[in-house]
Amino acid sequence: MRIQHSNMAATGWPECAKSLKGVILDLCGVLYDSGEGDGVAISGSAAAVKKLKESDLQLRFCTNETQATREKFVGKLQRLGFDISVSEVFPPAPAAIAVLKERGLRPHLLVHDGLLDEFDGVDKSNPNCVIIGDAAENFSYKNLNEAFTVLIGLEKPVLFSLGQGRYYKETDGLKLDVGVYMKALEYACDLKAEVIGKPSPTFFQSVLNDMGLQPHEVLMIGDDLVNDVGGAQRCGMKGVQVRTGKYRPSDEKHPTVKADGTVDNLAQAVDMILSQRLH
Amino acid sequence: MRIQHSNMAATGWPECAKSLKGVILDLCGVLYDSGEGDGVAISGSAAAVKKLKESDLQLRFCTNETQATREKFVGKLQRLGFDISVSEVFPPAPAAIAVLKERGLRPHLLVHDGLLDEFDGVDKSNPNCVIIGDAAENFSYKNLNEAFTVLIGLEKPVLFSLGQGRYYKETDGLKLDVGVYMKALEYACDLKAEVIGKPSPTFFQSVLNDMGLQPHEVLMIGDDLVNDVGGAQRCGMKGVQVRTGKYRPSDEKHPTVKADGTVDNLAQAVDMILSQRLH
Repeated sequence: MRIQHSNMAATGWPECAKSLKGVILDLCGVLYDSGEGDGVAISGSAAAVKKLKESDLQLRFCTNETQATREKFVGKLQRLGFDISVSEVFPPAPAAIAVLKERGLRPHLLVHDGLLDEFDGVDKSNPNCVIIGDAAENFSYKNLNEAFTVLIGLEKPVLFSLGQGRYYKETDGLKLDVGVYMKALEYACDLKAEVIGKPSPTFFQSVLNDMGLQPHEVLMIGDDLVNDVGGAQRCGMKGVQVRTGKYRPSDEKHPTVKADGTVDNLAQAVDMILSQRLH
Repeated sequence: MRIQHSNMAATGWPECAKSLKGVILDLCGVLYDSGEGDGVAISGSAAAVKKLKESDLQLRFCTNETQATREKFVGKLQRLGFDISVSEVFPPAPAAIAVLKERGLRPHLLVHDGLLDEFDGVDKSNPNCVIIGDAAENFSYKNLNEAFTVLIGLEKPVLFSLGQGRYYKETDGLKLDVGVYMKALEYACDLKAEVIGKPSPTFFQSVLNDMGLQPHEVLMIGDDLVNDVGGAQRCGMKGVQVRTGKYRPSDEKHPTVKADGTVDNLAQAVDMILSQRLH
């Protein structure tokens, strides 16, 4: 019994940090809360990112952010005080564009105005699929009817959803996320959407490939229990949840997903990781 | 084998019309197509309603219409040329108000402007449930966020959906129905909505009670295979689908619901019923 306990402890949180080679961070709800303008940085998170960058760990950022192009999004993070570059950030839209090319698909877009530039070079004439992102105010009855009409008119309707989140936190309250509208269109058209972004294993794997690491060498830290933590765990990574962003106390009693660890915020997570690696 | 065949024929469509005592009609897509203004009557349907009224069959109208109060809705039907009175029409809102009283609930409403008067006498302060109807343009991102925020703030969130339709036909195309937004909020809040309206058995039963008839004595005619035909069949009624309104050819190959009969329109259905009763 003692041996078994000791084995479990060695792969548990935070002891597992000793053997890590990389860390993947979610962005919204971990580094900052979104809202008017650029939103606000979460206390201690800029310093925590700096410490990780100064360590021997590889660092990437994996986000379901679809309200802006990757360039504009990274610009915002830099203004919020984070030392992050475009090549370190993995959002769903570039992954979706790769899928469109691979399968010869032309999308009807129901996305945020800020994301449209990302699809500039993509043929959108005579659409044979629909892509929805976190369109926020663009999720009007009129626009949802339009996307529905495209889908129901296709012989084989294809719906891509950039993420499947339920809701996220802005400075003025919780906001419905793209997953809610994905479920709406799935029901309307009696189909199953293809999710591009977290928690899709393909999406996490593309980040691991970029790091050149195996799943067991990497830890994911996020505020979304199902999409960040659960998604990473299904890929073989460890997953830690922060009590910021969309975290809710009921997450710690979730029926199917159990985080490897739960910490107050990113600063605490990073301090625990780095202190393990000192010993 | 011959006896069995003969038995089956006697309870099948249209032979079953011989023993009917009542007919329930859906309204939108059977009597008229909705759209700008009052919409347009479907050819032959006003005459068909007249013939049914002149027969010895009881007649009721069972609708998931929630864009207007019952009074205004019946006024529209009369302007379209139908001889129909308020007491013959069963929509979900009055049924919902009865449920609110019974359970001491105060609703937050996400419904069409035209339905608001129906809830005039209802206490809506400090809401402890949410009611959604076919809100159409009122299904904005802002309004859906508001309904979500009420639900997620309740210890035991209760969501009532006035029907669960996927879409309906207006003169300018197909439009998303309340069921789509019900699924959206169900996913957002991880709950199951309570449906008031078709295909809820309680709702059909309230119409049968008003007629004083048993289910096997009554035929339902509608354009919605799942909510009209399937719902009525689950209550023990016969269900016939018309090829008007939201009918689609794929309905005739539906994996779980099979109409007792499929006819071109209400006029044809009524002629078949009445001609069976002559013999």
